[in-house]
Amino acid sequence: MALKKKPVNGMKDILPREMAVRDYVTRIITDTYNSFGFTHIETPVVEEIENLTSKQGGENEKLIFKILKRGEKLDVSGAESEADIVDYGLRYDLTLPLSRFYSNNENDLPQPFKALQMGPVFRADRPQRGRYRQFTQCDIDILGEPSNLAETELILATATTLANIGFSGFEIHISDRRLLHTLVFSCGFPDESFDDICVILDKMDKIGLEGVAQELREKDFDGACVDRLSDIFTGLSKDSEGLKVLSKKLGEEAAGPVNNLLTIMKNVDASKTADFTLVFDPTLVRGMGYYTGTIFEIIMPEFGAACGGGGRYDGLIGRFTGKDTPACGFSIGFERIVLLLLERDMKIPGEHTQKAYLIEKGCSDDQLTEILKKADAGRKAGHRVLVTRMNKNRKFQKEKLSAEGYEEITEVFKGSPSEGVSQIINQRY
Amino acid sequence: MALKKKPVNGMKDILPREMAVRDYVTRIITDTYNSFGFTHIETPVVEEIENLTSKQGGENEKLIFKILKRGEKLDVSGAESEADIVDYGLRYDLTLPLSRFYSNNENDLPQPFKALQMGPVFRADRPQRGRYRQFTQCDIDILGEPSNLAETELILATATTLANIGFSGFEIHISDRRLLHTLVFSCGFPDESFDDICVILDKMDKIGLEGVAQELREKDFDGACVDRLSDIFTGLSKDSEGLKVLSKKLGEEAAGPVNNLLTIMKNVDASKTADFTLVFDPTLVRGMGYYTGTIFEIIMPEFGAACGGGGRYDGLIGRFTGKDTPACGFSIGFERIVLLLLERDMKIPGEHTQKAYLIEKGCSDDQLTEILKKADAGRKAGHRVLVTRMNKNRKFQKEKLSAEGYEEITEVFKGSPSEGVSQIINQRY
Repeated sequence: MALKKKPVNGMKDILPREMAVRDYVTRIITDTYNSFGFTHIETPVVEEIENLTSKQGGENEKLIFKILKRGEKLDVSGAESEADIVDYGLRYDLTLPLSRFYSNNENDLPQPFKALQMGPVFRADRPQRGRYRQFTQCDIDILGEPSNLAETELILATATTLANIGFSGFEIHISDRRLLHTLVFSCGFPDESFDDICVILDKMDKIGLEGVAQELREKDFDGACVDRLSDIFTGLSKDSEGLKVLSKKLGEEAAGPVNNLLTIMKNVDASKTADFTLVFDPTLVRGMGYYTGTIFEIIMPEFGAACGGGGRYDGLIGRFTGKDTPACGFSIGFERIVLLLLERDMKIPGEHTQKAYLIEKGCSDDQLTEILKKADAGRKAGHRVLVTRMNKNRKFQKEKLSAEGYEEITEVFKGSPSEGVSQIINQRY
Repeated sequence: MALKKKPVNGMKDILPREMAVRDYVTRIITDTYNSFGFTHIETPVVEEIENLTSKQGGENEKLIFKILKRGEKLDVSGAESEADIVDYGLRYDLTLPLSRFYSNNENDLPQPFKALQMGPVFRADRPQRGRYRQFTQCDIDILGEPSNLAETELILATATTLANIGFSGFEIHISDRRLLHTLVFSCGFPDESFDDICVILDKMDKIGLEGVAQELREKDFDGACVDRLSDIFTGLSKDSEGLKVLSKKLGEEAAGPVNNLLTIMKNVDASKTADFTLVFDPTLVRGMGYYTGTIFEIIMPEFGAACGGGGRYDGLIGRFTGKDTPACGFSIGFERIVLLLLERDMKIPGEHTQKAYLIEKGCSDDQLTEILKKADAGRKAGHRVLVTRMNKNRKFQKEKLSAEGYEEITEVFKGSPSEGVSQIINQRY
């Protein structure tokens, strides 16, 4: 029987060139966070279906790949609904597994616990260009740290990671969900409209303040409220000065979040060495409803959208474990970063010199072992050395090897002199 | 709602200590095979259920975690059998996905193609100690190379990898499935009994030649055949001398496989630099039925069972792609190697010096930024530097940090002198 050749709908095979970039990014992420004292952990890709459908995952819970019960537990013909035949599912993010992991292993973990997770997650989304149903997430979380030391460390570690990957001149936008709250209510908007207003505010970057105000009016929000909102945002700079201005406008109620943000910005700026800017951004919203304080987002000049983000979510873990746990985390847009590097046609730093030996059919064992020894010596000297048979179409083979990065290609013909090498090619094809 | 805290039955959370060992092993495997010109690839963990149940996987096909259809395609109440409600499954090995990958991407791959795969596979086995339903496999394959250059390279690369991980004095056992075939039939056993006889021969290491002969007689095999088999194995040494003796006993029919083995052993021995022994082992069987020639197995002195194995399987890929493709591969026992290293309580070579700063609550921003700068400088110097809050139970906290490998712990108290550091602890707790 012939196999279906394609991967399942919406998932993809990863070819050598992309995989090399993924390995490179993975390694820098692991090394850099490790140097900040974060520890790498892993959880299974499979979770109990009850955990996955516990309302923590929002819209993602509609996109779960569900796993069939097995053996005696499965009764297909007697089943009436999915719940009768399903017991597990594939995880749709790394936050739910982290909550479960933490409650399962808390006694064996440092306090506070600084975790790095990287791994595949699954969403049965409608497949579209550049968006896959299996993709890698990369989450960094500090659990058990209530102070803004968590935010400061997360921002410094994440910026250092991006710098080590090769990025510079990027921005990390920061705000506070509570500040946004105070701002919206100080304008007189009703309580229940907060989420709707956030969705519109989130568009400020694209449609401007005028566009936001217009859309709010179109949604029948009170004109006086909209005017007050416009007034607050007019001329507001995206930096600590803007934050101070906003603080005066909002008064005592905003003092907590404002001082917290000022401290984080001051401490990060005073100790950072990576080339990036920490920007106060009053229009920053972040989608997930579970954020309770600081929120942040990575903006790359090369990439329209965000390349990662996160924030403080003090309520979430306790809601599931029954024990209040302050938590703050960053999710790095792994797939987007890989895409950026591939588009740049990035040469991976520190790559080895690549040498290839093409062995003609019929070469003697003595010739072969001589080449194998040379290859071994080359590898010990830090090179990448390929020993492979010579194809009939040598020219094509050498062109392909050259495109793979092999800079030195040596052809070994049968019966050639005892040094076993008859030709050295140093040019790029 | 409270979460179920445990991972699903038979799967496990991976804690920081084990994860560090896994990352270390992963990195050496990737780097070493890469230095031999192998390229890393990845396929989705989800495959079409038709591919997974195409009879390639043997017994593993009974252990598939199956994924429910979604949306309109799913009709639970009208379903009569699993086939009606399932479209995908989780892969049970990396060989089936490699076949699919190769046929899907052949034109974009080098010829021959040297592939490295590492990733989770899933089997709904009865959970038992040390055996998990999600575990990591590590496969290295050369596709498109008919000559024993493939075997030679696979053995050298795998031995070098194990040596780089830190193993020495191990053995790689080698034989040929065709030799076994000739041997069994030259004794006069009937054709159809080959698999049964292999199962018994495989026990030679445990029950000895006497035990094997006895078991064959108990299964009612012809006494004269069993005597001939005993005669062949009596006094047969496990090395190239034994192979030559066997060759004489079996005659012309065994010449092909014998010469092939002799060449591989000669070339490996002449060019190897890792500390291992390549051993001809006429009792080597290897379970999978798809092997067509050379077979090999890694034997670690520290570990009773095999730590990996493989062989040539020229028929397999073509059976599914419709195009004959010579193939030879090694599967490294990743989980067993990790277990061995954990049992040895291995110190990972090249680990950084670990320093921790404990920050008392109430420290000034100036104190904090000073520490953050010192931490940054320490990381740039190659150290792992943790900045964390000081817990109430400092003694316990320091003991735990020491157990995690932090050799230098600095306590920073509020209001302490401008250098911000009041105590340095260099001792191990």
